Order: sequence, then C-alpha cells, then structure tokens
Amino acid sequence: MSKNLTKRSEDYSKWYNELVVKADLAENSGVRGCMVIKPYGYAIWEKMQAQLDKMFKETGHQNAYFPLFIPKSYFSKEASHVKGFAKECAVVTHYRLKTDEKGQIVVDETAKLEEELIVRPTSETIIWDTYRKWIQSYRDLPLLINQWANVVRWEMRTRLFLRTSEFLWQEGHTAHATKQEAIVEAEKMQGVYADFVENFMAIPVIKGTKTESERFAGAIETYCIEALMQDGKALQAGTSHFLGQNFAKAFDVKFATKEGSQEYVWATSWGASTRLIGALIMTHSDDNGLVLPPNLAPIQVVIVPIYKSEEQLQAISKKAESISKELRALGISVKYDDRDTFKPGWKFAEYELKGVPLRLSIGPRDLENEEVELARRDTLTKEVIPQEGLALKIQTLLGKIQIELFQKALLYRNEHITKVDTFEEFKEVLENKGGFVSAHWDGTPETEEQIKNLTKATIRCIPNSTIFEEGTCVFTGNASNKRVLFAKAY
Amino acid sequence: MSKNLTKRSEDYSKWYNELVVKADLAENSGVRGCMVIKPYGYAIWEKMQAQLDKMFKETGHQNAYFPLFIPKSYFSKEASHVKGFAKECAVVTHYRLKTDEKGQIVVDETAKLEEELIVRPTSETIIWDTYRKWIQSYRDLPLLINQWANVVRWEMRTRLFLRTSEFLWQEGHTAHATKQEAIVEAEKMQGVYADFVENFMAIPVIKGTKTESERFAGAIETYCIEALMQDGKALQAGTSHFLGQNFAKAFDVKFATKEGSQEYVWATSWGASTRLIGALIMTHSDDNGLVLPPNLAPIQVVIVPIYKSEEQLQAISKKAESISKELRALGISVKYDDRDTFKPGWKFAEYELKGVPLRLSIGPRDLENEEVELARRDTLTKEVIPQEGLALKIQTLLGKIQIELFQKALLYRNEHITKVDTFEEFKEVLENKGGFVSAHWDGTPETEEQIKNLTKATIRCIPNSTIFEEGTCVFTGNASNKRVLFAKAY
Repeated sequence: MSKNLTKRSEDYSKWYNELVVKADLAENSGVRGCMVIKPYGYAIWEKMQAQLDKMFKETGHQNAYFPLFIPKSYFSKEASHVKGFAKECAVVTHYRLKTDEKGQIVVDETAKLEEELIVRPTSETIIWDTYRKWIQSYRDLPLLINQWANVVRWEMRTRLFLRTSEFLWQEGHTAHATKQEAIVEAEKMQGVYADFVENFMAIPVIKGTKTESERFAGAIETYCIEALMQDGKALQAGTSHFLGQNFAKAFDVKFATKEGSQEYVWATSWGASTRLIGALIMTHSDDNGLVLPPNLAPIQVVIVPIYKSEEQLQAISKKAESISKELRALGISVKYDDRDTFKPGWKFAEYELKGVPLRLSIGPRDLENEEVELARRDTLTKEVIPQEGLALKIQTLLGKIQIELFQKALLYRNEHITKVDTFEEFKEVLENKGGFVSAHWDGTPETEEQIKNLTKATIRCIPNSTIFEEGTCVFTGNASNKRVLFAKAY
Repeated sequence: MSKNLTKRSEDYSKWYNELVVKADLAENSGVRGCMVIKPYGYAIWEKMQAQLDKMFKETGHQNAYFPLFIPKSYFSKEASHVKGFAKECAVVTHYRLKTDEKGQIVVDETAKLEEELIVRPTSETIIWDTYRKWIQSYRDLPLLINQWANVVRWEMRTRLFLRTSEFLWQEGHTAHATKQEAIVEAEKMQGVYADFVENFMAIPVIKGTKTESERFAGAIETYCIEALMQDGKALQAGTSHFLGQNFAKAFDVKFATKEGSQEYVWATSWGASTRLIGALIMTHSDDNGLVLPPNLAPIQVVIVPIYKSEEQLQAISKKAESISKELRALGISVKYDDRDTFKPGWKFAEYELKGVPLRLSIGPRDLENEEVELARRDTLTKEVIPQEGLALKIQTLLGKIQIELFQKALLYRNEHITKVDTFEEFKEVLENKGGFVSAHWDGTPETEEQIKNLTKATIRCIPNSTIFEEGTCVFTGNASNKRVLFAKAY
C-alpha cells in the first residue's frame, strides 16, 4: 500500500479517510458502521484513557460497570431522553439461534424476549435505576461514578472515529444533594475535559453551553468544549450535562436530608469518546500523515540505523541501545527499528505517516563524529547534533513540540473566529473562510433552525466568555444581548 | 444492612451471594442475568487488568478493539464454533424504536436488519474476518493481539461473577506461520495465566489440557488452569486454545511463505474474565467477609482513629498523615478513615468485610506510647507495635501475607487431590471430601459422559504433570495409561 495521501487542499475528507487507514489507526469492519480500532490507534486511545482516568480519580470519581443492555421500559421512562435516542437504537429481541430443517443457522423464534433490550446508547436510565438502591440518605451523597464502556447509536452515514455505530467512551454519572452542587460538578468536568484536550491533545477549545435544541436529551443545561478543525469545521470534544432532577424523578431516587425530609436527587452526566481521535487527527496532521502531540504519542522517539555492513549495524545498535536507555530513564518511550526487511527511506516515511514526534538516525559517520541526525515530525526540520547531552535535549524538545503544536492550533483557531453583523457576511464567511462565526442571535429555536436549513451552520455554543453586548439578530433583526458562535460542524 | 454473613459451613452458596453484595463487589441489575460491578469490585478488576495487561505487553502483545456485533453469517462459518455458542446468543434484529398510535414506545418493524447481528459471545469470527485483510505474507506474522471487552452469553441460571449473561474479559487472538509456533504461544499464555493467578491472586492452579468434550468450540487443544474452591468444587481460571487452521480455513486467511507458497495461518486464542473475582472470593474469604491478597487489594492498609475529643482526633490525624505518607512512599495504598458518622467498631467490621489486608488503629494512649495497634485480616490477629520502623514492617508483612495466603490455599488444595482406584471410592470421595479425584479413565467421551451423569463430576484436566502409569479405568475397567483429574466444578 502506497504511503502517499491525497493532499488536504484537494479533498480534505478523502485525506482524512486515507490517513486513518494508512497510519494504522482504524478501519471499517464487515459490520455496518462498526470500526476495528487497530493496535496503533488503540495505543493512542489507551494513553488518552490513562490520563483522563487519572484526572477523574483526582477529582474524586470511582469507576464501576453497568449492563450493556437496557430494558425498553427503563429507556422510555424519561420522555425527552427516549425521544432523543429512539431513532438510533440497536434492539435485541431473541436469545438463541438454531439449525433449521435445511441445515441453516437461523434465529430461534421460540426464544423471543418478553421485553426487548436496547443496546445502551448511553447509560442514564440503567444507572439511575441502580442509584435508587444505592441512595437512601444524604450520607450516600455525592455519588461520583464513571464508566468506561462501548455504546451503540445506529448511524446511517458513518466515518471512522467521527461517527460510528459502536464507539468507545467514558460516561460519568453523579448524584448530588443540591442543585448548586450538581451544577458545580457539571462545570468542573467541563473544566477537566478542557484541561485534558488543551494540555494533552494540544487542541484549543472554547468552553460554553449549548442552546436548547443542541442539548443532550434529558438535560437542563449542556456544557461543552468546541474545537476547530483545519478545514474550518467545528467538532464537539466533550460534553457535561446538568440533568436537574429529571432522572431522579423518572426513577424515583429520593434521599433523606439531614433534617429528615425526602427530596429528589440532583444529577449530572458527562462523556468523551473515541471521536476525540478524529479531532486529534484533524487538528495537527499534514499531507505527510499524522502529527501527534508528544503527550499522547505511543512512540515519542524512533531511532533508525543507516548502515551497509553487519559490522556497522552492530556498532550503531550498541549506541542506539545506550541512547534508548537514557531516554527511557527520563520516561520517554523510544523504539529502535533495526528491521532489515525495510530500507531507511521506507522507515522514515512510515514514522512520518504515524506521527512519531522525533526521529533519530545514526550512520557510521555519525558514530565517528559522535553525532546523530534529529528530525522533527511537526516542522519536518532536521539537524545534526552532538550525542553529548542528547537525552536532556530531547526531553526539552518534546515539551517544546507539545507547546508549539498547541500554539499553532490556537493561532489558527483565533484567526477563524469572525465577527459578523449581517446575514450576507455570515454566509460569506461560512462559505469562503470557514471557522466560527460570532454573531447576534435572537434566542429562538426557530431562528436557529432557519439558519441551519439555509447554511448548515449550527450554534456550537454560547461561550462562557461571552459578554453583554446590545445588538440585533443577524437573521431576524430582533434584539439580542450577546453573540453566540455558529459553525458547520462534524 | 447487617454486616453478618451466613456461615460457610451452614450454606456456602448463600455465604457467597451475601458476601458479594455486602462487600460492595457487585449486585444483580434489572436486566436478567446482567450484573452491576460496584466501585469496590471494579477497583479489584482494575488491579487485575493492569497486571495482566502488563504481562501481555511484556510477552509482545498489543491491544486492539473489534466490533461488538457479529453478522450471523460470520458466526456460522466455523461449524463446531457456532454449535458451541448458538444456544446462548443475544440477537439484534432491529435498529429503531418508534412511538405507536397509543403513545407507547415500540420496536419499529420497518427497521428490521437484513441480516441479524449476534452480540459477541467471543470474537474469533469477527477477528479472523479482519485478519484476512491484515495478513498477506510471513512478514505480517506473528500477529499478537489482545482485546479487553464485554461479551454476552445468554445464561439461564446466573450467579454474580461466576456465571452472568454479560461479563468483562480479555481475549487474545494470535496468528502464526507454523503449527509449532502457535502451540508454543498457547502454552506460553497458559503459563502467563498460571503466573498471574498464583502470584497475584494467591490461588494455586493445576496446569493441564481439556478432554475433547470439554474443549473450546473450534479448538484442537484447550490448555487450562484449574483452581480449587473452599467447598471442594473446581473452577476453571483461564484457558488458552490452539485452534489449528480451523478459523484460517473458515475465513480464508493465507500467507505467502518465505519460499513463496500460500499456506493457511495457525491460530490461538486465550481468555480470562471477571469470573476470576469469584475464584478470588471462594479461595481466601472467611465467615467475616472478604480476604484479599495484598497484590490485588485496592486498599492495602486502613488507618482508623480512636478518640473522644476533637483535640485527640487532631493529634491522631497528624500522626496518621505522617504514617500514610511513609507508606505511600513505599508504593502501599492506604486509606485514613476519619469519618465521624461511624464508630470505630463499625469501621473495623466494614474493613474486615471488605478484606483490607492490614488495619492500623491509633488511640490517645498509642500516641503517648509511640505505638499503634496492627490487625491482620487473614489471621484476624492483633498486636501492638512501635511506630518506629512501622512502614518497613508493614511492607514486609504485606509480602508475607501474600505468600501465606498462597501457602494456605496450596495446602488445602494438595490435601484435596485424592487418588482412587474404584468407582465406589470415587463416589465416596466426591460426596464426602470433595476436591479433585485423581483416577484412571479409558479415554472415551462416552465414559466421561456416563460418569458426569452419575456423579456431576467432569474431567477438569489431564494435568501437564501426569505421568505414564498403567492402570484400569475407574468406571469401565478398560485399560488406561494415565490418571486424570475429576471434580465437580463451577
């Protein structure tokens, strides 16, 4: 398979699809809409998981595991929730196969479930049904639980990582004694997501809240973080929901207060998924392949030997081992690729495609001069540097790359927030420049809907940083007191 | 809820069920046969996962993720495989719900899948369908992949951890160029499981192979590790399968050899699940609750303050903090429980129930004498010891407990392997003493079946350590050249 990718400027979407497959991140499976996450892609997900899990635990959360299946009746208990998910549910109806008279394997119609089971698209209902048993008194609160799981939302048009029928995610589900405490939790987790996405994925985000029509099905308020991809489209990178008492009422979860009265519990939920890998790709990568921020790169440094004789290889390998040892002692992950089945040029292209942040190559002359060649994946620059002090230099450089990737993405993002005051400008910016459009909106779902129908742009968020500013709606001319961010989105 | 458990001698099964729930490990959910793994139970699973994952990676395996759903046609491709699993499959037939004319949520009959999807009971078929794309040449081999996932096997009679319709597990799936290499891999993973179960779970196991009738559906050979529970019943604690070329043939996975010919690939698969938590409980625990080996205890040391005044509490807390700090520096997990909502006696019972290996309690007099009270969960012994050198003493003691738990279980297990030479003895031992019965067997599935029907005992394994020994089958009197291990099993 050729390592060459379609150029982003030619066809961004094609570039993305090719990159995901050629960099060994994921591929489509034989099951409609379900992906196979390949070892290299999964290694990135593991690094993301490990960091998020640490952050969740540091903020007092514990992991647990709830059933994959949700009885249809549970699922129907919260009206807006079921409305939001009913159209994309995988439904289990039978529990046995059999061999028919022709010798074919068929569903055994006698093994029909009395009540159909829904494969979880999200777990609020099954979890709140459980919380009723776990929560009796204020002493049981807050209950701060997270789950790492697979979920299924039946999608008609799928794209690897961005929209698949099955995906991996984490979902936090917390229960609180007061409204205020639940809101603080939902906001805190929005902050944790923003911290993770900015400092580990090197993707700048805008924190904000969703409008009513973009809210999670069953939420009172949805807090989101919005990122901007290289093609000018936005991507929601994590959401945290204040659910009020909706699920507590639907599942009758009450607690005895200190004063002895019975009250409904307040809830939040929050989630981030393998979709984030799509955001990672579309924020940093280039026409040569993936660019990974060092904090999430499964391999941070690769060492490639350049040699003709077996004797040269042995001398280089010895040096490579001692460099690797020093790097590992600093907590840097390093791979020495001495496979003789591939030429150095092939390996260079391979690790560029896979986004390894730094590549060292060592040839006989480098050995002689006590030097190495160091290549940066993000800038595609090379330099020959002394072996003396190499490990520390690499450590510093990895930190620098992490920051520079973020800065570069931030610059791009900031250049792509455009204030507009007329609908002509609005359409013009969306069409030609892309990115976020900061505009006044009259606050009605009807206007939002009409703008969406005309331009495909949705309100990505009402930024937390938005300020009071008198103006008129870019579409209807009605009064508005703040700008919101519109964009086309993934 | 009372912390008292039914005594094991009264009703072992009831004791187990109560312990799982009261120690906050797991509980039944509203979904038939599916469990909720509670935070404390999940924390044990996370420790098991972390260690197994490390061992898999050290032996060259990488993680990946394959779809939850398997098209029925894939599933049917390997004849003995589908035969083994067809009777316990959850089947997805529809992908949408709708609201009917009465306002009820019902399955949308127009959204029927053309081909039904099976919720994976194990992933050989979907994975080998993928491997066809991944394997072209000998350069692509060996392929050493593991997956952490949930699987579903529809069970009629379920028990928490031991037998649930959904469970969590890992499944390794490897592909090799030669038969010999695949066999070595299957045996190696049996060894990894044995190492993990003995050295981390402190459960002695017997390594062996399964008879034909107990083999995995689709395997040529099943390597197993068998453990013995306190009630004299055996439990299979992990299996590794040599699959021959069965799945490669079913899914047409061939590779070009170095010499240029096309050959079918050789396969293994191996798995261990949350069932191991059941084994953990039934090997070490007692009438007071869970007993956890230190290597898997989420909390290794708990510190409980004994005080009357707020002033006393403050002084104790200061000391507890400094002890905690020293323990954490040694990598020991410690919890200081200064909750004022519960009395010390309640806390003592709670941590006994939860199997925390060591408990420190500190009162005003201990402070004065520069001592602490140290209680061991496994032996239920207490001693008052100096604070001087405490952390190192605890570190040593945790190691000692780990070994002693294993030794105790090993002694019990060895005492419960009984050689018998007549069927009368066979039945007598099974009925009154329990454990493994070492007996001659004529090697036929028919005899195995008859013995099972008469006694409920199955052949747990043909031990690797078995030696050539002429004898006669305990049931038929036919010739036999080795003993095998029978037992009643979970």
